[in-house]
Amino acid sequence: MSAIDELTGELPAGVLVTDPDVMEGYRRDKAALVPAGTPAALARPVSTEQVSVIMRWAARHGVTVVPRGAGTGLAGGANAIDGCVIVCLERMTAIREIDAVDQVAVAEAGVINADLERAVRGQGMFYPPDPGSFEISTIGGNVATNAGGMRCVKYGVTRDSVLGLEIVLADGRVLRTGARSLKNVAGLDLTSLFIGSEGTLGIVTAATVKLRPLPATPPAVFVASFPALSAAGQVVTMIMAASVRPSMLELIDNATINAIEDYRRMDLDRNAAALIVGQADGSDALKDAERIATICEQAGADYVACTRDPDEADGLIAARRLAGTALLEAGPTVIEDIGVPRSRLAEMLGEIERIAREAKVRIATVGHAGDGNLHPTLVLDDTEPTTRDHALAVAEAICLAAISRGGTVTGEHGIGMLKRGWLASQLDGTAIDVHDRIKAALDPRGLLNPGRGW
Amino acid sequence: MSAIDELTGELPAGVLVTDPDVMEGYRRDKAALVPAGTPAALARPVSTEQVSVIMRWAARHGVTVVPRGAGTGLAGGANAIDGCVIVCLERMTAIREIDAVDQVAVAEAGVINADLERAVRGQGMFYPPDPGSFEISTIGGNVATNAGGMRCVKYGVTRDSVLGLEIVLADGRVLRTGARSLKNVAGLDLTSLFIGSEGTLGIVTAATVKLRPLPATPPAVFVASFPALSAAGQVVTMIMAASVRPSMLELIDNATINAIEDYRRMDLDRNAAALIVGQADGSDALKDAERIATICEQAGADYVACTRDPDEADGLIAARRLAGTALLEAGPTVIEDIGVPRSRLAEMLGEIERIAREAKVRIATVGHAGDGNLHPTLVLDDTEPTTRDHALAVAEAICLAAISRGGTVTGEHGIGMLKRGWLASQLDGTAIDVHDRIKAALDPRGLLNPGRGW
Repeated sequence: MSAIDELTGELPAGVLVTDPDVMEGYRRDKAALVPAGTPAALARPVSTEQVSVIMRWAARHGVTVVPRGAGTGLAGGANAIDGCVIVCLERMTAIREIDAVDQVAVAEAGVINADLERAVRGQGMFYPPDPGSFEISTIGGNVATNAGGMRCVKYGVTRDSVLGLEIVLADGRVLRTGARSLKNVAGLDLTSLFIGSEGTLGIVTAATVKLRPLPATPPAVFVASFPALSAAGQVVTMIMAASVRPSMLELIDNATINAIEDYRRMDLDRNAAALIVGQADGSDALKDAERIATICEQAGADYVACTRDPDEADGLIAARRLAGTALLEAGPTVIEDIGVPRSRLAEMLGEIERIAREAKVRIATVGHAGDGNLHPTLVLDDTEPTTRDHALAVAEAICLAAISRGGTVTGEHGIGMLKRGWLASQLDGTAIDVHDRIKAALDPRGLLNPGRGW
Repeated sequence: MSAIDELTGELPAGVLVTDPDVMEGYRRDKAALVPAGTPAALARPVSTEQVSVIMRWAARHGVTVVPRGAGTGLAGGANAIDGCVIVCLERMTAIREIDAVDQVAVAEAGVINADLERAVRGQGMFYPPDPGSFEISTIGGNVATNAGGMRCVKYGVTRDSVLGLEIVLADGRVLRTGARSLKNVAGLDLTSLFIGSEGTLGIVTAATVKLRPLPATPPAVFVASFPALSAAGQVVTMIMAASVRPSMLELIDNATINAIEDYRRMDLDRNAAALIVGQADGSDALKDAERIATICEQAGADYVACTRDPDEADGLIAARRLAGTALLEAGPTVIEDIGVPRSRLAEMLGEIERIAREAKVRIATVGHAGDGNLHPTLVLDDTEPTTRDHALAVAEAICLAAISRGGTVTGEHGIGMLKRGWLASQLDGTAIDVHDRIKAALDPRGLLNPGRGW
């Protein structure tokens, strides 16, 4: 009996699939520039126990396992490896619990971020992490990459909303981390160690997350149009140094404004060097938004506006959210994800423009400016090998420019396969050795998503 | 030449001390109930390089190393082990950098929390973590225990304010984690792994921390007096479920109120079952405080007050801050540190009263109620062995009661030596095995603070 037949026998019918046509849809994530292998099988477990069965089997037979959620990753971290079993968590969709008193929910790995959001919204709460993919990405994938989003500038990234995890280890044992209490320093912070580990240390099957009460009144939205990119970068440090904390602070550059307008008319100023768009959601949201707008005027904005009208506000935020879709329409894209200290934003934006000009590549930049997290998006003419190679070289140049400014090659998307080579400029040999030692301690045979994450 | 003589020769004069009288002052932290061994030497390095020299030497000779800061810990995590070298970071007091634009500081491990706070306050910022020991504890010790404080309810614990660490590993290499950018998912989250690790995985020599802009206007303080402990517990969930986030939300029980009044007249209501004291610091702080006071009235408070007058406000917060000192005056104390989900606060407070009554021990409880973090403080008649044994049994009963309510044996003080036995009820065999594997991966000879943390 083959090893695959043995696993088929250990799982209920339908969990393990070897049909190449079905597997084809699970071979890769959304990273355009990285290769994907051919899996031996695809497993779609519906329970933690089934994930355990799979990992015990994999450990017995030395089979590589690649965990994945919805496959919305942008770094190839969920791409198949030849001969692997893909473990897709998409069918583990139970929201096991919503506790409106303690403001906590327990969601399985396959729950779509927006589904969790909708489920808790009805009870007067929200789940803060809102990656751009929130309508299609899973909580498990969000945990695996420590996903961010627009609300992070006030409410933090995925890690800041996770109290504990349920994880299947490389040997099939189930590890439960964290506690239901908000503060907990009992033992090492295993929860944080697994968050952002991209499936290299274990398979996250469920997360206990913190929720927040919905704001009492609608948030107020502000928008400011800048004639110079440098001023748009500088205003971000001015806003964040003021004693008002926006719940969203985004930057949209000229190329992105025009891509959005080409895609759908939103009445954005096509001549602006950059727009700053954001919102405030405190108890006096409009006053806060007006203070931020005033700061934008002082920094050189030639147009500012604030609104608490839900339709107008939603329109402005919708324009920002359209950026990703609009750029995808413009051609094959490579979405970068650098982070820099906020004081270097203006300089970094200039550097991206310089790199684009010299490399003759169209780059549209949008980003979570309040966190110093930018998504320079390369819009390519085609996906020919030479175009891809050139795009990779440009992406690398951008990443190295971020590192040299005290930043990071990835703020919220992860290293996956795409950025492993560039990471060496950010993490030195000692840091990589510590990574390798932890990996060897938890997955001594290197079965879990080898070659990804660092 | 003895090993100690060898190390003396490798360090500048004065760094290594073997005088028993000097070492006596460094043998223990503030945990009353745990034993301390006799060290072979005390090292007081002034640089990261000196810490490296010490660890390389320790690795060569297989010598146990116990790192410590100011020794304000409450769980024995910094107590000497027979034959160890104590590495005290108290002389590494440089604030290497304060960046008011990016709102970041780099502080060495020996910097006193309040000194950092004072240094950044002059530039319009504050450092959020404010453990009760903030005037005497160090940033390194705060990192080692993931220290909390009163402002955590809005601004998070130490982990939420640390961007990166400089750490000397067990073999003497220097590991640098994190980045200067606010978001960073490049590689594993080693920063979080070391935060709260109580010196078991490496010696933290410096931390890069996030600062916040000072509130534009003085915070508003609220106080509410409750005739029943259960109502005081319940109001906490009501406040936290409202869309207003206090920047402080503390509970003081009757025994603590009276201890404070015995120590210094603060005009607190000696008959109240509990006081809820807190503050709001948003752009409309007084309105927020008034909303919270209204919720307290609805929950059964028989007296509420709000103030934005700085003198009155400081007085109320000072009363809360006096609790620790006042209880220390009342006799030898054992300060517990449990955490429970907020919905279980009322029940947990009742259980603590029941345990105190049955065990005939005076217990005064104060706590960071907004986070579900309570410090039941046992006030003992003496420190005789039978009294200590009884106190330990009572402390254990309180910890087990917290675990059985989904909570933790330690919210912000750490496990140290004191709570290792009780942790087994919170972390199962798989979790402990994962801890042991990570320890073995980073410190294979078990030199760093063995027997502490889990």
